[in-house]
Parts: sequence; structure tokens; C-alpha cells
Amino acid sequence: MFADPALYTEIAQFYAWHMALMDNGEPDAWADAYTEDAVFEEPGRSSVLRGREAIRAAITKRVAELAAAGTVMRHWTGNLSVTPQPDGSLRAQYYSLVMRAPRGERPDMFAHVVCRDVLVRRGDRWLIRHRHIGVDALEK
Amino acid sequence: MFADPALYTEIAQFYAWHMALMDNGEPDAWADAYTEDAVFEEPGRSSVLRGREAIRAAITKRVAELAAAGTVMRHWTGNLSVTPQPDGSLRAQYYSLVMRAPRGERPDMFAHVVCRDVLVRRGDRWLIRHRHIGVDALEK
Amino acid sequence: MFADPALYTEIAQFYAWHMALMDNGEPDAWADAYTEDAVFEEPGRSSVLRGREAIRAAITKRVAELAAAGTVMRHWTGNLSVTPQPDGSLRAQYYSLVMRAPRGERPDMFAHVVCRDVLVRRGDRWLIRHRHIGVDALEK
Repeated sequence: MFADPALYTEIAQFYAWHMALMDNGEPDAWADAYTEDAVFEEPGRSSVLRGREAIRAAITKRVAELAAAGTVMRHWTGNLSVTPQPDGSLRAQYYSLVMRAPRGERPDMFAHVVCRDVLVRRGDRWLIRHRHIGVDALEK
Repeated sequence: MFADPALYTEIAQFYAWHMALMDNGEPDAWADAYTEDAVFEEPGRSSVLRGREAIRAAITKRVAELAAAGTVMRHWTGNLSVTPQPDGSLRAQYYSLVMRAPRGERPDMFAHVVCRDVLVRRGDRWLIRHRHIGVDALEK
Repeated sequence: MFADPALYTEIAQFYAWHMALMDNGEPDAWADAYTEDAVFEEPGRSSVLRGREAIRAAITKRVAELAAAGTVMRHWTGNLSVTPQPDGSLRAQYYSLVMRAPRGERPDMFAHVVCRDVLVRRGDRWLIRHRHIGVDALEK
């Protein structure tokens, strides 16, 4: 049921690295961690994005909006579970708390979500083939 | 002082799995992760629960109340430490932030606690023999 | 790019242990985890501290102030990345959410920061040689 230590710590580090790309305003590197045919779903918040370039366009727009507003976001990952699949892909589930942290102001929770990803191996790296974000709560 | 990588990642995944059972409304599977003679203590919040069936009854009631209220809770685990004991049991300590996440609303912190568990091996799985929850803060 | 499982889980446990020292009011043990010549930077919040004894004096004062006020703080670490350097040191980066948890009251977020540490091996333990805390948000 559980991933071995090498796989589990690799995926934990994958998410620490990947979330930091978004939070540091590097949308291209963030989008490059998706497969070319990746699907990104966040029901109730946005329409389904199909393909890496659609995902890239959406994150590029989002990062630009946040930068224009001077808003820093920090995406926490927690309670990570990693389940290898028979076809070599992985299912990863984790909670994500999105902190909105305007510099010099009081920290603030923007959203709480549960993410379910399918990751696939491409050479020496993992790519996201499918992401489903279940929004538990979101600031209105 | 520290657990080896296999043990540490196994226990991290144990908690990710176990917290999700409660958060997804599966009280029976959650209760089955306690030993038959387990003790559950949460001083200042509830009386001591003795035995798996008392723990099962309490969580079943709690899950039903949350479902009736339409409330989603997400129990985060953080700063996990795992210390093997000479008798083969483990002591695990972690912080837990309890997010209350009513769908479509602003996320909210319900409680912050420090958990101290004793885990014992039974066949191929770990069971909780003792849980002590120190409540740091709780919404009034 | 990523640390191996033994190193990654060791550093995760190092931080769980070290944060608990501060949160449990043990400033001397906390300060002993810095090198004698350590540098502690938290721009915009305090002046640079140079040397273990300056760090010890600052944390001792801070812990005493919190104890006098009856305030419990809990320093969460998240999204940990660990990058070994050619000289044997490590770079560690992590998010930290500082929960202020007055007993019996509603939990509260005090600060959100991004920490960048340089750790060095001394015998069988890791010590912090440099800490840079980037304050994203802080309660006014």
C-alpha cells in the first residue's frame, strides 16, 4: 500500500520543488513538469485545462496577476500519500493549504484543497499527467 | 535518536492514510487502526476513552455530527518525530492543525494540537496503542 | 538535485526535533544546534545575529517573553528541500508557518516565512551555520 523510502522521499522533494516554482513566479518551469497531454481539473473554480500549453497559459496569466497585485502565495503540501500503480505510474494525494502572504501584513489562508495527481516517469524525472483539485474551501 | 528512512517514511504514510480515513468519513476503518485495549486521551476536551470499541463509538458519533452539519475537517500532520523503543513499540509525536473547510466558504482553523502516540506492530501493520492529544488552542 | 532517502529523512527529523526545542521552551539546546560562528538573518524584523552566543541570548530572551505572556508558539516546517553541496554542507529550504496557540483560545497564525539554512556536519550531528528567514507576512 505504501511507497518505499526512495520513492516516497523523491516525490516529497518533487512537490517541494514544484510548488516553489509557482510560488517564486516561474510559470514556464512549473508547466514543464506536466506531460504534453496533461489534464488539469479544478471543479467549481475553473474549466478543465487540456494539454501542457493550456496549463502553461493559465499559470502564466495567474502568476502575472499575482505579481501585479503584489501578492505572494505559498502552497503547502501535507499528508502526502504515494501509491505505485501496476502500469508504472503513481497516484499521489496530498492536502494543500494556500497561504496568501502579503509582505508586512498578517498571514492569511486563501484556500484549502485536496489534490489527486497521476505522475508518470519520463527518463529521469516525474511528470504530472493528471491533476484533480478538490476545493474544500476558498476565500470569497 | 532518529528513525531510519524505511521506518520514518512508513509512519509518515501511516498518518497520511489514517487521517484521511477520518476526514473522508470512514470511522470503522479509522477505529480498526487502534489496538483492542487502546487508550485515547484528550485532556480538557473529553473524558479518557478506553478500548477500541469506545474509540469507535466516539468517532462514529463525531463523524455523523460533522456530516449532518455539512462540515469537512482536514487533519494536518507536521513536524513528525518517530522514536523506536527498546520493546519494539514506537513513540511518534507530531503537530496537528485541524482545518475546517466548509465547501465554498473561507477556510478556517478549528484547532491546533500536539499528538503523542505509542504505536505497536501487529503482523504487517502498525496499530495505535495510546494517543495523547495536547490541545494548544481550540475555537470556542 | 534531490537528497537520498537517508539524508532527507534525517534532515526532516532534525527540524522536527529542533523546532520542538524552541516551542517547548528549551533555548539552550536550541542554540547548541548552531555552529559557534553561525549567522542568523531575519531582514526587516531584527538585526543580524553573529555567533552562537548572540543567537543564544536572543532566543533566551524571546522564550522568556513568550513564557511571561503565557503564549505557546508552534513552528511548522513544510515543503522541505535538501540539496547537498560539493563541500559536504547542505542547503535546506522550507516554509514555516508560526502558529500562536494560547491555551483554550482560538488558534491564530502569527507569521509565514521561508527559511534558507546552510547545515554542516560536526561528528554525528548536523549544525546550522547560516539561517536566512524571509518574512512573507507577520501579524502587526
